[in-house]
Amino acid sequence: MRAVIYDGQNYSLNETPTPTPRADESLIRVLKTGICNTDLEIFNGYMGFRGIPGHEFVGIVEQGPKEWVGRRVVGEINIADGVCDMCQRGVPSQCRHRTTLGIDRHNGTFADYVTLVTRNLHSVPENVSDDQAVFVEPLAAALDVATAGEITARDNVVLIGAGKLGLLAAQALKLTGCTLSVIVRHETPARLLARWGIHAITLDQAARNIASAVIDCTGNAEGFAAALDLVEPRGRIVLKSTYTSLPSADLTRVVVDEIRVIGSRCGLFPNALRALEYGEIDVESLIEARYRLSDSLAAIAHASCPGALKILMEAGR
Amino acid sequence: MRAVIYDGQNYSLNETPTPTPRADESLIRVLKTGICNTDLEIFNGYMGFRGIPGHEFVGIVEQGPKEWVGRRVVGEINIADGVCDMCQRGVPSQCRHRTTLGIDRHNGTFADYVTLVTRNLHSVPENVSDDQAVFVEPLAAALDVATAGEITARDNVVLIGAGKLGLLAAQALKLTGCTLSVIVRHETPARLLARWGIHAITLDQAARNIASAVIDCTGNAEGFAAALDLVEPRGRIVLKSTYTSLPSADLTRVVVDEIRVIGSRCGLFPNALRALEYGEIDVESLIEARYRLSDSLAAIAHASCPGALKILMEAGR
Repeated sequence: MRAVIYDGQNYSLNETPTPTPRADESLIRVLKTGICNTDLEIFNGYMGFRGIPGHEFVGIVEQGPKEWVGRRVVGEINIADGVCDMCQRGVPSQCRHRTTLGIDRHNGTFADYVTLVTRNLHSVPENVSDDQAVFVEPLAAALDVATAGEITARDNVVLIGAGKLGLLAAQALKLTGCTLSVIVRHETPARLLARWGIHAITLDQAARNIASAVIDCTGNAEGFAAALDLVEPRGRIVLKSTYTSLPSADLTRVVVDEIRVIGSRCGLFPNALRALEYGEIDVESLIEARYRLSDSLAAIAHASCPGALKILMEAGR
Repeated sequence: MRAVIYDGQNYSLNETPTPTPRADESLIRVLKTGICNTDLEIFNGYMGFRGIPGHEFVGIVEQGPKEWVGRRVVGEINIADGVCDMCQRGVPSQCRHRTTLGIDRHNGTFADYVTLVTRNLHSVPENVSDDQAVFVEPLAAALDVATAGEITARDNVVLIGAGKLGLLAAQALKLTGCTLSVIVRHETPARLLARWGIHAITLDQAARNIASAVIDCTGNAEGFAAALDLVEPRGRIVLKSTYTSLPSADLTRVVVDEIRVIGSRCGLFPNALRALEYGEIDVESLIEARYRLSDSLAAIAHASCPGALKILMEAGR
């Protein structure tokens, strides 16, 4: 099969043997896979990953348990051991001994085929398209913002970082009924937010120290500093992005203003599938371009452009 | 009267006019005042403070409302406006327009007399000594660790930074019934913890990633990094100290491990007074030395020594 392989220095499209699923795994033919900022960070050394990256996908089970073969599926990215204390507590995404699809010691989806433990698979409902299904993983993470931040209709929320994930999170937050403003710097996110009926403002327009919760989807020190400026005393800051370096962070402000900083990583796939099934979230508008897997290097270059929205790679030659 | 005055560069003991209380204030004769790390940071420029520092005190009301004159009192440090949204929400310690005793635009207690709004005063119960009462402010803050961190008997807690405040916080945490370990580097805190029946360990002995909550009383980047190493996935880190500089903080770990970082600043005086009245907290053992106000410069120098516990300054010449 073909696969994008990262050797720790460079990535390239190669021919490589189609993997053989273990007894607890299925072999999945990848229909579409999305490029996430985490993938781009992996190409900069994040997690010391080597192998095939990619973790956002929709595919068809080709080998595996009889009842799964032929099903259209998405898959959870954390491969958990099922026996550690975090798994026993019902939090397999934080499994002590997990590997992570295309991120940490487990080959991912920038390929014709991928193997994944069958228990991580979810069937995609009939009325959810492939284009929609490929967003299930980031949408699940976006929906978790509201859960982790305990956002309700009483909250006054500001979101910073209106990129791919931020625009999903904004829609997810809107479902809570909270008062929501999204900080924008570019025209495309502003246009999308207007379409969705979400209030967009510039950072200069945002009132200081009155948001009950700020969602930081920037993944940089400036974003966190801005979040501290916007949040009210005793408010919450939800961190939704990994940071490329070790940022300086004004922890004294966290203490003096008695802020709660809440990290959020992965979400629940059933919630995301349901939101798509019920048409609650517009993901199609986030698709900026589609490439064949054969053009994966161009796809990755495009995804690396500042402000790029979702780039998909699709099956076929 | 005599007062320690900080001019933005140096501090010195001076004669200065005894302040005249406003209609809503009382004039308090200071019996004892404690030196806090925040005072030492003020001498390094923290908050841009100018004037008389000091905020931990017990004193006697000399002028003010008739029913208050002669009472032995302690006083809350946040001078709130009573009308802003935070005050109306019942959080005057986060008042939008507050000044802070000896910390922010309000003269403090390193003096023979201090003025403070009468509504900030609390009578000291008969059986609480002056030595105990001078600890009410930091003890209230220490008790808030458990409140802010939602610490219960089910928690496995590690505390880092066994200084003055950390040793109060350790005793406060013990009252919750949680499983508690305190990281120690020096003999004196180890001896005190042993006396109180609190488990003391070195950082090397502490198990990684299993504390449901870590209390960071260090106020430095190393402390926060250690807290991230000790806390379990989805655990809590309570920040209890202000940081001298803008520390680097691994916010990616906060996201990936889905940590909650909780800032805690001030606590409720009635809780601290009650804990002292009922003999639940040993504060006297934290007193390292006593000085007269006339020896305040020596007192401050002593308080600046690494590992110094509480230094008190007392009335009299």
